[in-house]
Formats: sequence, structure tokens, C-alpha cells
Amino acid sequence: MERYFARDADGLPSLVGFRDFPGGETIKNDLSLVKSLLSDFHRYQIDRHAYVLAIGGGALLDAVGFAAAIAHRGVRLIRMPTTTLAQADSGVGVKNAVNLFGQKNFIGTFAVPYAVVNDADLLASLPLRDWRAGLAEVLKVALLKDPDLYHTLRRHAARLADGDPALADPLWQRSAQLHLDHITAAGDPFEQHAARPLDFGHWAAHKLETLSGYRLRHGEAVALGLALDTAYAARVGLLDPDLADEICHTLAMLGFTLTDPTLNDPDFLAGLEDFRQHLGGTLTVTLIRDLGRPVEVHHIDPEMMQQCIDRFAASGFSLPTTAGTGR
Amino acid sequence: MERYFARDADGLPSLVGFRDFPGGETIKNDLSLVKSLLSDFHRYQIDRHAYVLAIGGGALLDAVGFAAAIAHRGVRLIRMPTTTLAQADSGVGVKNAVNLFGQKNFIGTFAVPYAVVNDADLLASLPLRDWRAGLAEVLKVALLKDPDLYHTLRRHAARLADGDPALADPLWQRSAQLHLDHITAAGDPFEQHAARPLDFGHWAAHKLETLSGYRLRHGEAVALGLALDTAYAARVGLLDPDLADEICHTLAMLGFTLTDPTLNDPDFLAGLEDFRQHLGGTLTVTLIRDLGRPVEVHHIDPEMMQQCIDRFAASGFSLPTTAGTGR
Repeated sequence: MERYFARDADGLPSLVGFRDFPGGETIKNDLSLVKSLLSDFHRYQIDRHAYVLAIGGGALLDAVGFAAAIAHRGVRLIRMPTTTLAQADSGVGVKNAVNLFGQKNFIGTFAVPYAVVNDADLLASLPLRDWRAGLAEVLKVALLKDPDLYHTLRRHAARLADGDPALADPLWQRSAQLHLDHITAAGDPFEQHAARPLDFGHWAAHKLETLSGYRLRHGEAVALGLALDTAYAARVGLLDPDLADEICHTLAMLGFTLTDPTLNDPDFLAGLEDFRQHLGGTLTVTLIRDLGRPVEVHHIDPEMMQQCIDRFAASGFSLPTTAGTGR
Repeated sequence: MERYFARDADGLPSLVGFRDFPGGETIKNDLSLVKSLLSDFHRYQIDRHAYVLAIGGGALLDAVGFAAAIAHRGVRLIRMPTTTLAQADSGVGVKNAVNLFGQKNFIGTFAVPYAVVNDADLLASLPLRDWRAGLAEVLKVALLKDPDLYHTLRRHAARLADGDPALADPLWQRSAQLHLDHITAAGDPFEQHAARPLDFGHWAAHKLETLSGYRLRHGEAVALGLALDTAYAARVGLLDPDLADEICHTLAMLGFTLTDPTLNDPDFLAGLEDFRQHLGGTLTVTLIRDLGRPVEVHHIDPEMMQQCIDRFAASGFSLPTTAGTGR
């Protein structure tokens, strides 16, 4: 970083400090990172016209973003997401958060970043497991908004599971664009309404992450949440069962394991109430009735959902995952 | 509170919890109040569609407002200010904050409250010292925006210093309206610019509060800050010296003590840099060149300012303060 900023000393602001942190959702689990960042901002005299450049995955961007949003009521944040998940989804959003009281994202703010820089080169060094994780959010937004994108994912699932960047780069971009379009044009950027139309599969994903102690990556939890809510949509007659099977098959082909012992946790279904509470008002869960046709439901039948949970807990979708090519 | 909510059980939301806290700026000095509030919100399952009703002075509203703004990225906050200062100024704004690293309002957010309820009856039980404190903000906004309001304050200063509510109630309202108009119509509600046009006298006020360990009330510190910056404006030739004297005389007649040992603190002038840093960019201090004619200056001559500081440190404005009528 020092070399980079020194190389173009006239064209860039001066670098007053640099710190590195471990990544992963667990850094959001206490306030010490946020406090330590605030202490840095104070020491380096970061003001509302200074820049905080955050380079990392979604969890790091969330935590740094929260600290930047509350220091002096908001200093300028530039996000540079380094994971497929953050480049395809959360990195381009207006949210930040850390976890508290064992509840994911209990505190945070809505704050528009000064800039977001998605650099595909940053993805090249990711381990395959992390690289694949972003495909879950691409599939999610495809199911909600873009049938063509879904078919691309489905057709090329095996090569994507192997981590083919030439194939995947346009997909991360398309996903980022769809997420950004939603935030800027769908009329509820700061989530005043009780619905969260992009959060297909996410009530389960959030709870799976928390209950697994963040052993599951967010993307892996989203994949399992999508499979579960897709199966539920078919079970209650909203969605063609053959399409539901195809979607689960695609998720499995993309390399996701569609079962996890966490599904057996007696607290798992309480994730629906956590999800309702975070947004407030009536429970609103986004499902699909067809490709590109989201539907909001305000009641989840606990018995039918439990049947779906039991099915995935018992066997998941038993496709062998693609071995990967040792990227 | 329980009786009030029980009396109109059909017309009001249910009261899930109630807590009381000490008031005063010192409650903003550590994060324990904020953490304790967040813990309550979690326990009472406060969500984005629930209400947090904060009843208190500016410091309490600031701290509760911050907790409400970050829980679930913002729950609905209703402010009911109980001090003249908060009813006339901060209670109607869009800011919240707590102090950190010894710096006032180091962390906070901009968050529009769901509602603000100014009830004049709440002011009746205030001790005279607290009651008078709000007059400083009324005078400040009068000097910046409303010469008629200034003349009213000047003519009735002695009776106002005695705490006459019939005279004062319309003044709190007018001040609240002027502050609100500024926030909603002046084009920079979230302070993206380096200027803060309402903060006449405030660089000194913030530093006086901090350096005095919050022995000085915010209003008292603002009164001294206004006197200092008014004298400085005359000293550098911006403002008619007779008018500057009249303004200081009015402040003294309103019951404010225009001297304080804190002015001798060697760290006092650093308040200008703290002030610049909080907003970022170039130093911008709002002075006046006449009644209702604010002017932004980007340089404060340290020697001339020191002369003004020395003058107020030595003798202030030696009017005997009005004794009060034992409200």
C-alpha cells in the first residue's frame, strides 16, 4: 500500500495509516474491531472529507463500513470487495453492520459509500470454496430477476464449480448490476417496508450461519436457504416441483452441499422470527412462483417447512460435488 | 408511564418497557448507556416498526437517538425534549451522538426522528439555571436569522432571566421553527459541506464544555462562545463594536456569566481544529457582520482571538447576574 500511494504521490491523497485484519464473519461478532477502527480514525484525524479505503470480503466491509458511518456521523468510505460474494452482492449495497447478542447484523446503518471498486483480478487468488460461495447470490438474483442469467448458470454449472474466471467474470458483473439496480430503482433503498425482495433464502441463511458458529460461509448458507425455500415453494403449490428440483440440482452442480447438521437444531425455525424482527412489521418472506417471478408470502406453514427441513437434513441433494481443479 | 399507556390502551401501542437514566452531558461520555439501551431493545424485541420514546434533555436524546439509529439500522424514534435547550434547538434536529476519546460527538449518525413533541408544560419544573440555558440558542439563531427576535430578547432580557414562561414560550417555538427551517430548506441537512451555518459560537462552546468536564451547561458554553466570537468579529472589523457590546450586554442581562477559568486552558484554542476536523475540509467558522447577516470565515487570527479570550478570561462582562425569583 505504501509503495502504491508513493508511486503516484501527486494524484492520490496521502496514506496516513494502514492496518490489516483477519477476515470472515467472526470479526463482526464483537465491537472490538469497530472500537479499534474508531481509535485509528481519531489518531489519524480522519474527518468527513478524508477517505477510508476498505479492502476485503463482505464481513470486513460491513464492520469497517459501520465504523466509517458513525465516526463524525460518517466519513467517506471506498469499498474494494475481494470476494465473489462481496463483488456480486453486499459490496455494492448501502448497508453496514456488526453482530450483537448473537444476532447477525443487530447494529448498523444505511450509508451510501463514496465509491465501490470491483476489480476482477482480486478474485484470482481465492480458494475454490470461497470463490464458489458468490455463485449462490448470483443464482439468487437470477431466480428473482433474470431467467437468462439462471439458464447460463444452469448450463455452465460444472465449469463454474471448477472456478472458470472467463465464464464467471461477466456473471459477477451482472449480479452486481442487478443488485445495484434494485437498490437505486426499486423504491426502498433503506428498507422502510417490511419486505426485503432480494432476500430469497436469507431467513434460513442467517440462522444457519449463526447456529453453525459461522462454520458455513454466507454463500453456502444462502445456497442451502435457497434450496430449502425453493422446496417449500413447491411443497405449498407455488412453484412447479420439476423446476424446484432443477434449481436444487443446479445448486448442487455449482458445488454447494445441500445438507448440514445445523438444520436439526431445534432453534432453527426461530430464524423466521429473527428475520421478521430485524425488518419489523409483518413477516414477509420472498419466494418465487417461476423464474423471474418473486412472490411475497406473509405466512410460512411450520409443518410443511419442517418437512422440507427434514428432507435436506436427512440427505440434501446427494450429487457428488465437483472436485475442482486446484485453482 | 404505565398509567398513561394503560389509560388509552386502545389508542396507543403497548408499553413493553420503561427505564430512567440520569441526564446531563456526562451520560454521553462512555458507551455503556448505548450498550445498555441496545440490550433493552434486544430484550424487548424492538424492531423497525416499534417506537422508542425518549423523554429528556439534549444529552439523553442524543444518546438514546444514537442507540435507536443503529439498532436494526434504525428503529422509530420519538423525541420529547424536556429542556429549553433541547426544545429550542437540538431536539428538533436530525443528529445524534455520543462522545469518544474526549471529543464531543465523535460518533453518531444523521437520522430523521419519527416525531418530535415539544410540550411547554415540561419546562415548568426546570431549575432556573437550566431554564435560562436555552436562551443562548435562541439568541444565537436570532443573531443569525431574525433581528426582530433579537430585539425581543434584548428588550425583555431581565424578565427572561427571571424565567417568565408567558414571555418565553413563543421564543422557544420561534427558535425551534428557525432551526427546523434551516435543516429542511437550507440544502445541507446532513452536513456534507464544510460549513455549519447554525454553529455560531460553537467551536468555543464545545471546547469549553469538554475542558470544564461538563461543569458548564451547553447553553452556558454557547453564551460564552457567542460573546467571544462576537467580540472577535468586532476586533477584526467585521462587526460594529457598539453592536458587539450590546450583544454581550444582552447575554449578561439574560443571566449568563461571560467569563470562566477554562478560557485560560492552554488547550482551548485547539477547539478550532477539533471543530474543523469534525466537519472536515477547510476550517469554516460562522460569524456575523450585522444582525441577521451571517458570514463564513476560513481563517481565525490566533493573536486577535487570544486577545478576546484574555479579555473574557480576565473580567468577562461584569454585569451582576439577575438573582432569579426562586422558580
